[in-house]
Amino acid sequence: MPFHKIINDPVYGFITIDSDLVNHLIAHPYFQRLRRIHQMAMAHLVYPGAVHSRLHHALGAYHLMRCALQELINKGFPISEEELEAAEIAILLHDIGHGPFSHALENTLAEGMHHEEISLLLFKELNQLFEGKLQMAMDIFTDNYPKKFLHQLVSGQLDVDRMDYLTRDSFFTGVNEGVIAYDRILKMLTIHEGELMVEEKGIYSIEKFLVSRRLMYWQVYLHKTVLSAEQMLKRIIKRAKVIHAECPGQLNKFINEPLQNITLQQFCAIDDYDVVMAIKTWCSHPDKILSVLCEGIINRSLFKVKYYNEPVKEAMITEQRHAIMSKLEISEEEATWLAFTGEASSSTYNFENEHIHILFKDGTVKDISEVDDALINENLKGNIKKYYICYLRS
Amino acid sequence: MPFHKIINDPVYGFITIDSDLVNHLIAHPYFQRLRRIHQMAMAHLVYPGAVHSRLHHALGAYHLMRCALQELINKGFPISEEELEAAEIAILLHDIGHGPFSHALENTLAEGMHHEEISLLLFKELNQLFEGKLQMAMDIFTDNYPKKFLHQLVSGQLDVDRMDYLTRDSFFTGVNEGVIAYDRILKMLTIHEGELMVEEKGIYSIEKFLVSRRLMYWQVYLHKTVLSAEQMLKRIIKRAKVIHAECPGQLNKFINEPLQNITLQQFCAIDDYDVVMAIKTWCSHPDKILSVLCEGIINRSLFKVKYYNEPVKEAMITEQRHAIMSKLEISEEEATWLAFTGEASSSTYNFENEHIHILFKDGTVKDISEVDDALINENLKGNIKKYYICYLRS
Amino acid sequence: MPFHKIINDPVYGFITIDSDLVNHLIAHPYFQRLRRIHQMAMAHLVYPGAVHSRLHHALGAYHLMRCALQELINKGFPISEEELEAAEIAILLHDIGHGPFSHALENTLAEGMHHEEISLLLFKELNQLFEGKLQMAMDIFTDNYPKKFLHQLVSGQLDVDRMDYLTRDSFFTGVNEGVIAYDRILKMLTIHEGELMVEEKGIYSIEKFLVSRRLMYWQVYLHKTVLSAEQMLKRIIKRAKVIHAECPGQLNKFINEPLQNITLQQFCAIDDYDVVMAIKTWCSHPDKILSVLCEGIINRSLFKVKYYNEPVKEAMITEQRHAIMSKLEISEEEATWLAFTGEASSSTYNFENEHIHILFKDGTVKDISEVDDALINENLKGNIKKYYICYLRS
Amino acid sequence: MPFHKIINDPVYGFITIDSDLVNHLIAHPYFQRLRRIHQMAMAHLVYPGAVHSRLHHALGAYHLMRCALQELINKGFPISEEELEAAEIAILLHDIGHGPFSHALENTLAEGMHHEEISLLLFKELNQLFEGKLQMAMDIFTDNYPKKFLHQLVSGQLDVDRMDYLTRDSFFTGVNEGVIAYDRILKMLTIHEGELMVEEKGIYSIEKFLVSRRLMYWQVYLHKTVLSAEQMLKRIIKRAKVIHAECPGQLNKFINEPLQNITLQQFCAIDDYDVVMAIKTWCSHPDKILSVLCEGIINRSLFKVKYYNEPVKEAMITEQRHAIMSKLEISEEEATWLAFTGEASSSTYNFENEHIHILFKDGTVKDISEVDDALINENLKGNIKKYYICYLRS
Repeated sequence: MPFHKIINDPVYGFITIDSDLVNHLIAHPYFQRLRRIHQMAMAHLVYPGAVHSRLHHALGAYHLMRCALQELINKGFPISEEELEAAEIAILLHDIGHGPFSHALENTLAEGMHHEEISLLLFKELNQLFEGKLQMAMDIFTDNYPKKFLHQLVSGQLDVDRMDYLTRDSFFTGVNEGVIAYDRILKMLTIHEGELMVEEKGIYSIEKFLVSRRLMYWQVYLHKTVLSAEQMLKRIIKRAKVIHAECPGQLNKFINEPLQNITLQQFCAIDDYDVVMAIKTWCSHPDKILSVLCEGIINRSLFKVKYYNEPVKEAMITEQRHAIMSKLEISEEEATWLAFTGEASSSTYNFENEHIHILFKDGTVKDISEVDDALINENLKGNIKKYYICYLRS
Repeated sequence: MPFHKIINDPVYGFITIDSDLVNHLIAHPYFQRLRRIHQMAMAHLVYPGAVHSRLHHALGAYHLMRCALQELINKGFPISEEELEAAEIAILLHDIGHGPFSHALENTLAEGMHHEEISLLLFKELNQLFEGKLQMAMDIFTDNYPKKFLHQLVSGQLDVDRMDYLTRDSFFTGVNEGVIAYDRILKMLTIHEGELMVEEKGIYSIEKFLVSRRLMYWQVYLHKTVLSAEQMLKRIIKRAKVIHAECPGQLNKFINEPLQNITLQQFCAIDDYDVVMAIKTWCSHPDKILSVLCEGIINRSLFKVKYYNEPVKEAMITEQRHAIMSKLEISEEEATWLAFTGEASSSTYNFENEHIHILFKDGTVKDISEVDDALINENLKGNIKKYYICYLRS
Repeated sequence: MPFHKIINDPVYGFITIDSDLVNHLIAHPYFQRLRRIHQMAMAHLVYPGAVHSRLHHALGAYHLMRCALQELINKGFPISEEELEAAEIAILLHDIGHGPFSHALENTLAEGMHHEEISLLLFKELNQLFEGKLQMAMDIFTDNYPKKFLHQLVSGQLDVDRMDYLTRDSFFTGVNEGVIAYDRILKMLTIHEGELMVEEKGIYSIEKFLVSRRLMYWQVYLHKTVLSAEQMLKRIIKRAKVIHAECPGQLNKFINEPLQNITLQQFCAIDDYDVVMAIKTWCSHPDKILSVLCEGIINRSLFKVKYYNEPVKEAMITEQRHAIMSKLEISEEEATWLAFTGEASSSTYNFENEHIHILFKDGTVKDISEVDDALINENLKGNIKKYYICYLRS
Repeated sequence: MPFHKIINDPVYGFITIDSDLVNHLIAHPYFQRLRRIHQMAMAHLVYPGAVHSRLHHALGAYHLMRCALQELINKGFPISEEELEAAEIAILLHDIGHGPFSHALENTLAEGMHHEEISLLLFKELNQLFEGKLQMAMDIFTDNYPKKFLHQLVSGQLDVDRMDYLTRDSFFTGVNEGVIAYDRILKMLTIHEGELMVEEKGIYSIEKFLVSRRLMYWQVYLHKTVLSAEQMLKRIIKRAKVIHAECPGQLNKFINEPLQNITLQQFCAIDDYDVVMAIKTWCSHPDKILSVLCEGIINRSLFKVKYYNEPVKEAMITEQRHAIMSKLEISEEEATWLAFTGEASSSTYNFENEHIHILFKDGTVKDISEVDDALINENLKGNIKKYYICYLRS
């Protein structure tokens, strides 16, 4: 009997594994480690259901890749067994380089390192371990495989990564409005001159997909309270580095040693648990800045956030800092850790970079922003930027 | 014990009836008759699940009215028990004047009569029967009640009618993309100076609601095949009137006598069943036009429809008519029944008429199209119009 | 490109048709006619959402057959393309012989005829029309095909017919408790010595399936009010036959002529619409019995039903009949039409006939009722029978 | 405006908080700490979605309590505003005494202490803090409040605790078969002589509820792999105590000091994060037993489990131990940590203790196991017990 295993998924019902290699990759400690990294960092402080892991997302994206390719095969496009498995692996491992709290601490814990680079390093190590069997998957991942649409499914405007995280994050937060018709979008995919496109009758589904993403950004990912918690989290790590705070486990190296001292294995040894334990430890740290931030996260006393359409006035931030200075008896410089401003932005459909192409029945191709009566043009164009102030409540 | 009855609804779980008067209205033959009228006319020929009745929709809208008012009461707005029941009745009966196949045959079976007028006539008759107990409900229905927001919930840009039909039609067609976050919208409703408004944080939900409506129009209500079937249906009735075709039951009066001969009771005696039986009967009618149209509906051999962004060229329609003339051996005038053109249009958010108002935390009020970074402005403005040709396949 | 068509289904998402032959069968008037037959007869009078058609059920069962066979193929059991298509067709047409209101009027409209026999007649006719291409499907349908499990999937304790109707009826009634884990059951199916079995780890799912069926019987199919409406419907047809009531359309032949005069084509010409129109016509029939029954159905003034664990006492029924006699001024014989008793029974898992076999990992096979700690034995054994009285409310 | 806050919940949609006191309790660190305790301990190793927290469960049970009481109020039973809030608090805090990994480590980390006792201690402390405002809630919790049904809703055969955890655990595992019709059960609740009962027409829903629980036990809670992980977890803590292994943070006290040295505050300082960090630390512990167990959990290399209907034979366990002894070069005593046997049992409906009472329309009361044609009697009676062997794979 061929290898066959099913995993229960509340989002898609069942996820099927029928490749021995895929099964071994899932069982590898590098992949299992993703269990201990929240997919949505601190969003669960607002949406208590949003505690799903990055491992779960990787499995979900893998499942959608299978569905997408099956649809394309059914439509008569040639995709070999080998390519199918390689694409499955490429998406399975696309996020393997994520560190603790994913995006929220990216570039903070390991400054200057993006998760894609680390993913690629881990990809290479696993390829060695599995004797070169991951080569085609790596080529797809790095966009060096001739069938360009395979890479586009891994990373592009319509990739299964995005489709899974929007679907999954909607599901676990309970924000039903973010739900996208992933099943319909998958059925509308097609290939034209080697590129991934959408059939004409899928236009409305794509519009809805882009509007859902816009909504998820402002209602969930950049929700005031989520932003507050993630900004606090970032500052905890930064402050700990500045004052050389000690913490248990391997995380200590990341806080107190230069990045070049750290090996890939050490990177893979830390996860959300190390960070939360450090935060719990630091709740009673003598440094007031650090302990205030840490207690805020642990007991969910989060900083106040207000959004504005224009940059925050200097006077406003000064007022908050002064209040904090006298309350905590700290210096102005120290108060900048507990009251600060910033920008948040989301681009729903970025015109500069990549495009969603619609293939019409008569063979013509148009960008989604150029079809007649398009919803997606001026309004969803470019970045929407908002300004915020974030400060300890007095 | 107070009156208490629950009805299972696959969309909302349970619908509760706890007013004796509401219960009696539901039991009345005028209301029960709505069981025999499809909510979505011929849409089930494309979406086989879309066979739900107008009675079901009325019950659903009634349920949402209860939920909406309960939210407003919880927020501290004064709404009396009497007003609650009156608003429930107003929405329960808002569609009671619909005839067979609702919108699809409106103005065709009973020319020049809109269902709102008939609803009002029936409302009056029921008010007499129930000894004036429906007076406040009628005042709300006709917008003559001082608390304007009650009427706006029955009929307005954010009424529970629309919220239920979008939700219900999405559910029964299986077009999940049309799903709106009715529960969230209800929670975001508020009242300001007597008018229904939406709280600031509900903006994205409203955008999504309007985009869903746009999608439902083009993907479902104006789907090519649905349009075809409904145009065929209309022409069956028109043709039957022209050639004085006989049919069983009370419908015969509508076909063969002037409208002024028909009583309200006779109007209430006909429903989808009369029309379908007439169509079945006419499948073997000697008039070729009539029998071709009727067989098409019964056996689901529907006319071909093509949409265009510009008016259909004369040559195109002439070509189709000539093909039909020689195929069926009929005259050019006759062929105009079986090959014709038309316009379909939907307005997602009509700027001219009514407005969705957003109430900001600072007390200011803006139209949804005027908030910063609004999605809903130029693009969703006014009507989108498409042109179509529809003809018997050769 | 291979033939490929998708149908939206609110229950399963999408149903895929990828065989030209299947597509032609679906388009045939015999199949399209199932659109006009309610899957659940009169249940919508209690559960307003339960208006789905027998066509929808046939499509759903077809979808589950595809899923079931795909699972079995994935597990390595040999099933050819031809067998796959034949099994799809066998289930698609399994109910094609149903008449108006399905089971509710079976054996009443066409006395002595079961829908399976008519299905077979229609199967044969279609086989001729399609030049013998349905032969293998017919062999599977009639259990004359060597791979016995294919027939068992069409008709057996674990057939996809049952799985679809339980799932679909739960969905449309909103009785979520009837929901079965069809997807899990399908994943647990296996084949042993040519017979359909369930893997060991599927035991709890099967138990749940049987308990759900039990619940659906008593809560939905034999719900007091549903029973009442269906008994009234039966009596309408019987009474019409006795008094030779006239009605429009082809139904008149069924009422007023011997069965042998009726052709298969005439049988296929009638559906729920004919019966409802007849009932509407008879609401004003001079025969009091007939008009009372018909008005009851049309206006939903249904007879009272009470269930008992023992046969209803003679005195009770006599009392009701006397009340009706004096109320309507009718004879005792006539009153028996409006007050009567009966038995209702359901068998959850019938021990006599067929068996659900569990295949254990060690290769042994046990009946579901014989596994250790079985839930399904004495209690779900045989028929549960209840007695009822049903009468016109006074 | 009255206090009003909503929380998104993927299971119930929205959870409403409209009491200031409830809001303050939720914000308290003792309650927030439940965010860091998995509701289902190690079940996520099999069901990746099952990562929801005990805080989420507490909020869910609180929501069901509100729904249940609202139904009873609608049915005319007198329940005061004060009682409503007290019952809400009683259920909100019912699990506040849970420690890391809840049941899995109960009685292991803090030997001899049950979570109910600790809950009560914390309840008392919070009552002091909130100046006696939790007194009625405590009386309900400890069954000292006259309206007995309030306690039964907190803790009894039909309590909202159970209803929430079955619903929520089904939802997050994706085991749809465990879904119970909580909404219908709530609508069927009634009170008779001060006790919580179920209306006659709710019998089938209750049966389904009990069968679902049975299924959830064997398919999820006692799933072989879940059992394995939880047994390994228990042994990690036990082994650490035996060999006095050191670990970071407050957990160290629990491992290395007698229970009487530990304060309630210290108990509240530890959660799943402490335990997982300790396990990560111990992966490289010199004690082979401890490091093997810890690595097994972190990398998901779980022990093999086999279930039997009879006690496991001595020879079988000896064989496994010998294999481990030679593989790891350890003593027989040490091998008993890595190969062992045990019993697992579930009682679906325990006849000894408490009863589910059905209130019939005629006023009689019967136990669910005594109604006619009861499903729930011999078969679901008492405990089902299974025996298992659990050992390190060689």
